[in-house]
Amino acid sequence: MELVLVKLGGSLITDKDKPYTARREVITQLVEQVSLIKHENPNLKLIIGNGAGSFAHQSANKYNTINGFSCDEEKLGFCLVHQDALDLNFLLAKSFLQAGLPVVSLPPITMTITHNKKLLKSDFSVIESSLKAGLIPLVFGDVVLDQAVGGTVFSTDAMLAELAKYFYLQGKFKVRLINVGNYAGVYDQEGQVVSNITQANYSQIKPFLGKSKSVDVTGGMAKKVEEFLTISSLGIDCWIIDGNIPGNLASSVLGTPTLGTLIRAF
Amino acid sequence: MELVLVKLGGSLITDKDKPYTARREVITQLVEQVSLIKHENPNLKLIIGNGAGSFAHQSANKYNTINGFSCDEEKLGFCLVHQDALDLNFLLAKSFLQAGLPVVSLPPITMTITHNKKLLKSDFSVIESSLKAGLIPLVFGDVVLDQAVGGTVFSTDAMLAELAKYFYLQGKFKVRLINVGNYAGVYDQEGQVVSNITQANYSQIKPFLGKSKSVDVTGGMAKKVEEFLTISSLGIDCWIIDGNIPGNLASSVLGTPTLGTLIRAF
Repeated sequence: MELVLVKLGGSLITDKDKPYTARREVITQLVEQVSLIKHENPNLKLIIGNGAGSFAHQSANKYNTINGFSCDEEKLGFCLVHQDALDLNFLLAKSFLQAGLPVVSLPPITMTITHNKKLLKSDFSVIESSLKAGLIPLVFGDVVLDQAVGGTVFSTDAMLAELAKYFYLQGKFKVRLINVGNYAGVYDQEGQVVSNITQANYSQIKPFLGKSKSVDVTGGMAKKVEEFLTISSLGIDCWIIDGNIPGNLASSVLGTPTLGTLIRAF
Repeated sequence: MELVLVKLGGSLITDKDKPYTARREVITQLVEQVSLIKHENPNLKLIIGNGAGSFAHQSANKYNTINGFSCDEEKLGFCLVHQDALDLNFLLAKSFLQAGLPVVSLPPITMTITHNKKLLKSDFSVIESSLKAGLIPLVFGDVVLDQAVGGTVFSTDAMLAELAKYFYLQGKFKVRLINVGNYAGVYDQEGQVVSNITQANYSQIKPFLGKSKSVDVTGGMAKKVEEFLTISSLGIDCWIIDGNIPGNLASSVLGTPTLGTLIRAF
């Protein structure tokens, strides 16, 4: 069975320079592509995760939520970040439901706990049951509770990488991960898209990976590529593709090669 | 340590005769009371659960979600019910957050699984961690996945009863449950509020317990009283009180007797 994890980037589905502003026409276009994918390949299992974009990154930055909470204000901040993340996720969920796609919003805070900002344990049984029931789990970058510092932020990339690993290791699925962003792929020194990243060439590429221009509390491109390199070493292909090109997500999921960066460890 | 589980009834916080309509002035009044409770007794642990009212009961009825899903339409229905339940819960969550209360919305679908509409297993660790971190978990009546029939509805009453039992049996908490409804308590044959229900007198009261006048897929007063009688036999006092009376929730949680029905097994 095939499982594809799709990350819809925060910079793609929101205007990262305008707080709390979704790019609704882009969302509509992405939802249409997911409909097409399900129509063309009804047996394909999908998990969709969305970035926080200009929603939860704003509040997470304001309350420094990634570093935990100690006072009442930071505690309330943690809750506000959760609510901001849910707001964007719901806007997306509703677009999928209107298109007749059976998505179910499942917040990572209920599945994951950290200790000193490092993953301590996860329980993905609700994702597994949802897939078995024929639903499309919808996850997102969320706050999670932390046994040492109260709480922290768990990025969509980290969540999808954990899920990809979990389902891959069960041995039941061929797993791929597709990161749909507001960029054509990973850029090199000359601004050209790097077509392949492997463990062998990553050290030459790393110095050119920039930080996000907008508010992004979870790390930017270098962290993303490193998360993906780790899981690609198991045998999970990861693509970084441009979501602004109509049809790019669908053609990528359905197997036709597409412009972008393929991360394959070896 | 004291733990109070508060059920905010769907018929109280929504207009059950007008689909998808919240009673915002009632919600504001209830939020103010929770603020007062936390101010008067900061160490008290609270879990709040809200009924679905005229939000998710509408769609749950339309798609017969309580009995599972087999076709694509019912599967989509299951997802729409989840989203309707979340909509009302969010409206509530935002009111609490605006008042500075650190609530965190935690959907029961992620914690509970059923088999043939009977509870199979639950994992409440995220509720426990939230309480430990000083947050107020906010739950609600939700859809849950079912191993035999695909999915079903798990009521707020059932969820709160399970949580009450779970925390009571840990032995760390003195646990109470307060059901805040759109009625003065449980009524007898003459329309008078029954002040006490016990296992001994329940058989005389049962015949007079009516069904809900509006759409309610989860069972009405008899089922509620029976859920509460079961947990009260452990030693958990359950109150059914009128949420329309300003201050009634606060005085009830803070210990002053209030008009209503007390369910205490013996």
